[in-house]
Order: sequence, then structure tokens, then C-alpha cells
Amino acid sequence: MNTNNITKTITALLTEIKKINSIEAIIQWDQETYMPEGAGDFRAEQISYLSELAHHLHTNPKFKKELSKLVDLETGETLNPNTDNNTKFLLYLVWKDYKDASALPPSFVKTLSLHTSKSQQTWVKAKQENNFKAFAPYLEKMIRLKKQEADYYGYTTTPYDALLDKYEPKMTSQRISSLFNEIRTPLVQLVQHIKNSPFTIDESPLKQPFDIDKQWDFGLKIAKLMGFNFNYGRQDKSAHPFTTSFHPTDVRITTRLTENNFKSALFATIHETGHALYEQGLPTSDYGTPFGDPISHGIHESQSRLWENQVGRSKPFWNYFFPQIKELFPIPLKDADVDNFYRMINTVSPSLIRVEADEVTYSLHIMLRFEMEKLLIDGNLTVNDLPDVWNQKTMEYLGLTPPTNKEGVLQDIHWSMGAFGYFPTYALGNLYAAPIMKQAAKEIPGLEGKIETGDLLSLREWLREKIHTKGRRRFAEDLIVDITGTELSAKPFMNYLLEKYSKIYCLESV
Amino acid sequence: MNTNNITKTITALLTEIKKINSIEAIIQWDQETYMPEGAGDFRAEQISYLSELAHHLHTNPKFKKELSKLVDLETGETLNPNTDNNTKFLLYLVWKDYKDASALPPSFVKTLSLHTSKSQQTWVKAKQENNFKAFAPYLEKMIRLKKQEADYYGYTTTPYDALLDKYEPKMTSQRISSLFNEIRTPLVQLVQHIKNSPFTIDESPLKQPFDIDKQWDFGLKIAKLMGFNFNYGRQDKSAHPFTTSFHPTDVRITTRLTENNFKSALFATIHETGHALYEQGLPTSDYGTPFGDPISHGIHESQSRLWENQVGRSKPFWNYFFPQIKELFPIPLKDADVDNFYRMINTVSPSLIRVEADEVTYSLHIMLRFEMEKLLIDGNLTVNDLPDVWNQKTMEYLGLTPPTNKEGVLQDIHWSMGAFGYFPTYALGNLYAAPIMKQAAKEIPGLEGKIETGDLLSLREWLREKIHTKGRRRFAEDLIVDITGTELSAKPFMNYLLEKYSKIYCLESV
Repeated sequence: MNTNNITKTITALLTEIKKINSIEAIIQWDQETYMPEGAGDFRAEQISYLSELAHHLHTNPKFKKELSKLVDLETGETLNPNTDNNTKFLLYLVWKDYKDASALPPSFVKTLSLHTSKSQQTWVKAKQENNFKAFAPYLEKMIRLKKQEADYYGYTTTPYDALLDKYEPKMTSQRISSLFNEIRTPLVQLVQHIKNSPFTIDESPLKQPFDIDKQWDFGLKIAKLMGFNFNYGRQDKSAHPFTTSFHPTDVRITTRLTENNFKSALFATIHETGHALYEQGLPTSDYGTPFGDPISHGIHESQSRLWENQVGRSKPFWNYFFPQIKELFPIPLKDADVDNFYRMINTVSPSLIRVEADEVTYSLHIMLRFEMEKLLIDGNLTVNDLPDVWNQKTMEYLGLTPPTNKEGVLQDIHWSMGAFGYFPTYALGNLYAAPIMKQAAKEIPGLEGKIETGDLLSLREWLREKIHTKGRRRFAEDLIVDITGTELSAKPFMNYLLEKYSKIYCLESV
Repeated sequence: MNTNNITKTITALLTEIKKINSIEAIIQWDQETYMPEGAGDFRAEQISYLSELAHHLHTNPKFKKELSKLVDLETGETLNPNTDNNTKFLLYLVWKDYKDASALPPSFVKTLSLHTSKSQQTWVKAKQENNFKAFAPYLEKMIRLKKQEADYYGYTTTPYDALLDKYEPKMTSQRISSLFNEIRTPLVQLVQHIKNSPFTIDESPLKQPFDIDKQWDFGLKIAKLMGFNFNYGRQDKSAHPFTTSFHPTDVRITTRLTENNFKSALFATIHETGHALYEQGLPTSDYGTPFGDPISHGIHESQSRLWENQVGRSKPFWNYFFPQIKELFPIPLKDADVDNFYRMINTVSPSLIRVEADEVTYSLHIMLRFEMEKLLIDGNLTVNDLPDVWNQKTMEYLGLTPPTNKEGVLQDIHWSMGAFGYFPTYALGNLYAAPIMKQAAKEIPGLEGKIETGDLLSLREWLREKIHTKGRRRFAEDLIVDITGTELSAKPFMNYLLEKYSKIYCLESV
């Protein structure tokens, strides 16, 4: 245990909290995979019990007293001046997590939790019935509560930053805006070029029936080759694919299988395996302390997107795997070759639904949401005006108009759950992944050639060394500097897209 | 909630303990069904954390203080003389559970838990290697510890009774001996008559390949007809079939499927569904209090055995289901008719392995174990002499000699886990089930005819009313008196066996 420098009591308490969280994660996994339908009410009680128990341990006087022996509770600065930088940072993280956990008064937590539950239920129904008006008052109240939450946490510029910090520590909305500004116009233009290209891709072979069991087996095979250790993990089915970890020795992914959509299960598996490799690679010796945790949602997403898009949708990858799937699915793929298959899995087509978006348009969906939620939290957009502004932006970014709010502002669950500040981490994942992969290609000799021969482990080893085993020892942007030697910028991502899709769509000059 | 009469604090604490236990049950279920192999070490930590947490809540001063307001902590008697009998009994149970939980000093619990873990591991290896000597010192120490445990609990006659009480409250070894005495000779004789019968049954059709998926589906179909509510439960696969409940709204059973053994999965499913119906039928309004719990291991086992043997191995049952399985499995059952199929699933043949024993010889296996463990705990048999005495008894009861200790004294896990007092509850289940079923036949008009037409719900409703919904409001034997109007005796069980097997084996006079 890397905890010589923080007191045993604090470490024991943190490990206990982590253990409770891990148990909560198991019963939540069960809820999404195998739990019988009628067990939901009692499961909610079990989950909230564990959640309150962990919160209680984190915020009780004992923890505070122990922590106050080590850091200034006001600033998070280490009291002992002889402490090394590593330990100082660890203590800062312990303090930060404590501060966040104890920032919210219990009565507020209860109000928020009750409202979240009601708001989410209302959203489900409102979406089904395409009734934004029914959801609006809940969203309004949620925004009020989230502003209040931000006030409790504290912030310098905008309450949005306090919320964002929970998902992407130390990131600011100003920084995100500046990164997004770099790609907004180039992305919209790239989409336009692709739209205008005379070159079209026929995706229909992938909409033919693909045997469900073979899809499952093929996904597992790829996950194994990526280095997902099935002695310490597994894959199951769920309505929405996700990854969860109970410990680096028990990491679980899920996928969903659709007979008439070959891409769905496969890329979900690759994406979730990317997340899973991160979790399996975290340092077990730091388990319980912040250093045993992942850095942020954005870095997590960089791992899933790197594998899903930069590897799983790359030509070298399919040079190796295409002959195998052709043999596995001879009927739907009878006329396909690796070139047109590669195009099929990389079609770009502006659409209304974020979760179905391709690699190029995806970030536009995110930028739209980021702008909306920033305006809402800052009080510069009313809930009443939201659907119209959403639709205008959709036209601006994607050239489309949602026929109803169901395909527009009501499509995502996030706001109904109060997850303001979450959306941008999806796009940050893309922005982080590009320079990481670029650097990997520099440092791993013949990486493309390796992938082309089915060697995915070399990349995983590199990611493990550079990212996974570091745990939470760095902030996201500092990690990128460590790895690449340069500040994060959106250029590598934009260049990657331009290069890849110019070829795919035979664009002359973009 | 039926808790007007016990303080809110006690009820809240009991419910919290029950909730923790239920969460522990989920992660144990996961361990047996889906957990990746490498996650065992951390899972053990999670389980022991929850187990200690629940124990801590049960034995801390707060609980004691609240309880002392209601009952005399020495005797368990209710302090308020105006309390009704129902509440008095509830308080007695609360007190009894508290007393048992706090009887063992934490240091002893730790010693026992450590030794159990080592002992179990040693047993696994010793069984594999057929090396009783390697296991013997662990068993000796276990017996010493269990005697010590019994001393902590306290007892009148023999330490064995204190251990037995944990599985079958209020039952004594004297009572069990007297019940077993009623059936020992008749059982041995019945087995002898069957052995001598010129009538033989050819079981080989059931050892042919039966499609695994169809076996699974057929098991589920029967479970549904038995009234297992799959909105509040499910079936999975595991190495050893078991039932677990997280709440009456989430009850799970498992089975194991063997292609060349049709009986294995089917009767495991029926058996476990019998357990599950009990759990699903417990009064949710009493959840958290003792009245929301099942009565005892023996009563639980009566429910599984009633369904497995008295229903699932009965002629009326197969009059309904045989045409269906004949259609489902036409190849292995091509020459079978309902009469010889009924015989095939009711073959009696003394064998060495308890878990593979038939309905007639099963109780003999239990009696042997009960006698052994009673002698061991009372100090009337040394571990050294155990294998020989085991083998002698096996010859006496079953006419067989285990070729090695693997098929003898090393076959069961129970003693290695310290589960002394558990074995007799299996046979008690048989003894309870017989008079219960006899009474059901009296009270449900045309029960056989109902079963013959696939109506299994009438029986479940009757069991639900008479047993399941009562929770733990009665001791086992009192429940039998309530239901049947007479004291428990072994006669109904023996008569049931004699009648059934005389017909099956065409015995003239037994």
C-alpha cells in the first residue's frame, strides 16, 4: 500500500468507503443485468442504504479529525512541510474528496435525491409522450437545485464549473469553450463536405441478419485480444451498454445485441472493453486511496473511444479481422470486401440522436448540449425557450430539425438526473484520445503493423504503463502533457478526422 | 408493519441488519453464479465486511439498551405484563436472536472464522487426495471450537443441542433420536425388501442425452406452474443448486444441467422452487422482524422435499407432464410410458453418496451423520476412530462399504465448515413434509385430480396460507400441530414410503 504517508486511520476509512461503494456497484450491476423486474423498489432501498452509509463514513467527525492532523481543512495544504510532492498531491485529493462529500447539507442531499427520482420518472414519461411541458417544471427546479449545489461547492467564475469539476476535476467551462471553438467550424465544414461528396456508402449489408450468438462470441474474442482479462471480468447483456468495476479484479462490461445491426453490439463491446482495460489496469496497491481511482470521466472516455474509433474503426484492425467475420457471417457479407466494409463502419451522416451519431458528428451533438446547459445554469436561457434554441442549434450544427422534442431536447436522460457538466466529458474523451494515440504510434514500433496482425496487446501495455497504472496521480491535462510533451489541443483530433474521412469520402481538399 | 408493539428503534435496527444481510446474500449469489474466478479474494473481503457490520449493529450497546426497555435480558420475558401473546413471542424471538448474536466474544468469532476458512480449504484438498489424516487435525480443532461455541450459547443436556438450535430452534437431539428410532429399522427393512425384489427398473433411458436447453425450459415451465413468480425471482446455473432470497420480491434459485442425467436438473429445479415458494410467500409486512423470517431449516426443507418428492415424483404429476416430455424428448423416451418413467424416477438403490441418494435411503444417510456428529461433539467418538465407525454404520444401514474415505467420511463439506447440527434438518424436512402433505390432501378437494390436470397452484395456495405467510410465528413442531391437529411423528413419512414403494417394487407384504 502506497500509504506510508497518510495515517492508517484515514486509509482504513477510505478503504471502507471504497468497499461499500464497490458493493453498491455490484447490486447496481445486478439491477441492470439480472434483477427480476418486481424487485426494483427494495433494490432502491438497498442502494440508498449503502450510498448513505458511505457518505456518512466520509463526513463524520472522526474522518474530519484525522484529516485535520494532516492538512489545513480550509485550503487542503499539507501541514508537514517536509512532505514529498507525491504525498502532498495525494493528501490534496483526499481533502478535495472530503470537502466535496461534506459540502452539501444532508437536508439538501435529501431534497436533491427526491427531486432527481421524480424528475427522472417524469422525463421517462414526458419523452414517451413527447410532452416537454410536463417535464419543464422539473427541469426548472433541477436547475435551481444544481445552482444551489454549485454554491455549496464554491466556484470562481460560473456555477457551471463547480458542477463540471465533479466529472472532470480542474477543468473549466472557459477551457472547454476554447477547445470546442477550435473544432466547431472545421467539424461543421467537414460534415458539409461529406454531405456534398458524390461518393456514397451503402450500409445495407450491415442491416441484414447477423446471428446473435456469433456476434456475442466475436465480441468476446476481440475483447480478449484487446487484453481484457476474463479471469478478472466478464460481459453480460443489458438495455444500455456500460462498464462497472468492483475492484481491478472484478470489472464487468455489458453489451446489447441486435440481429439487424452488426455495428451495435460489436462497437459497444470494444468501447466498454476500452473502459474495462482502464479499470483492470488501475494500481491495486493503491486501492482505497484516490491514487487507486481513475482520473476523470474524460480520461475514461478517452480509453473507450481510442479503442472503439481509432483502433476498432481503423483499416489495419479490419485488415486482420475482416477475413474472420467474412467466414463467420458469409451471407450478409457475401459481397463485402475489407475496403467497403471499412467504409460501412465509418459512414458519416448527420442524425438527430446523439447515441447513434458517427465519429465526426458526435462532438457536434456534445457541443450543442454543453452550450445549452451552460446557458441554463448561468441563467442566460429559460427552460421555456430551450426547445426552440435546441432546434436552432441542431439546424446550425447538423442541418436538421427534430420533428418532435422526443428526437430533440428530450432525448437524453442526463439533465433529468441533474448530471449537468457530464456531457462535455464525452467530447473531451475524443480530444484526449487523439494525441494519446498519436503518441502511441510514435513510441510503439510498427503499431499499425502490429494491429494488422492482431497484436492489440502492445497498445494495451503502452496505455497501461502511461495511463492505467498511474491511477489518479495527475489531472487530465497534466497527464496529456506527461505523455505527449505538449499542451492539450483540439488539433490532433481534428487532423485525425480530416485525414481519415478525406480518404473514406474521397474528398479533394478540406 | 406488525410492529406496533416493539419500539420503532428496535424495528429500525432489525430492518437495517436484515437489509445488510440481504445485500450480503446478493453478492454471495453473484459469487456462485457469475463472479469471475479471480475476484474471489476481494469478494471474501466484501462479504466479511457486511457480515461484521450486521453483527456489530446487532450487538452494540444501542440495541441492548433498546431491548432492555422491553424484555428481561436474562430470561427474554416481556416486561410489560399487558402484552398480548403474539407480541410476547415476537419479543422473545428478538431477544433470542440478540442473545445468540452477542453470545460469542469477538475474539472467538475471529478464531472460528479463520479456522473455518482453513479447515474448508484443507477438506477440499483432503477429499481430492483421499487423505483423511490431513483433514483430521482440522476436524479435531473444529470440534473443540464448536463445543466451546455451545458453551457460550449454553445448553441443558448436551452441547450438541446448542448447535442444533441454530438450525432448528427448540429442537433437541433427544427428540430427533426418538423420531429417527421410529424409522431406522423399517427403513433398513424396506431397503432390504426392495433389494430382494425380483422386480428391477431399467433407468438407462434417463442416462441418454437430453437437450440441455430443453431441460432448462422444461424446468422453468414447471417452476412457473408451481407458482414461482418470475416477476419476483429467477433461475440461474451454479455448481451446486441453491435458493437464496434478498427479499420476498427477489428470490433466486439455481440448478445445474447434465446432458446424460435427466433427473439432475429437473428435480433440483423442483426442489429449489419449493424453497423459493416459501421465501416468496413470507409476509413482506413483517420484513425485518423475526416474524418475516422462515421458521427453521427443517421447515424450509419440508417445502422443498414436499414438492420434489411428494409432488414431483408422484404418479398424478407425471400423468400430466409425461406426454409433454415425451414430445420434448422423443428420442431418449421413445420406449418409455408414464408407468415405467414413474418407476425410473423412483428407483431405490443404496449408494454411498448422500446427495445422489433416493427418497428411501436418503434419511439413512442423514441418521448416520447425525449419530456420528452427536458422538463427536459429546466426546464419545474420536476423530481417529471416525472413518471406521462411519464405514461400519454404512454397512449396517446401506449394506455397503466405501472403497475410500472420499466416498465415506470425507464426502460432505458440512463438518469442515463447522456446520454441526445441520444434517438432521434434511431428514426433519422429510418428517415434516409427510403429515403436511397428508393434511393438504384432506383439505384440498380432489388434490390428486388437480395435480393430474396440471393445477399445482391449489397446493401452493394452501401451503402459503398454512405455512409461508405465517413467517416465524411458530416453532416447527407447533406448526405441525397447528396444521394437522396432532403431534409430529415419523409414521406419516414411513407410511408414505411403504405405500409408494410397495407399489413401485410390487412388494407383497412389508
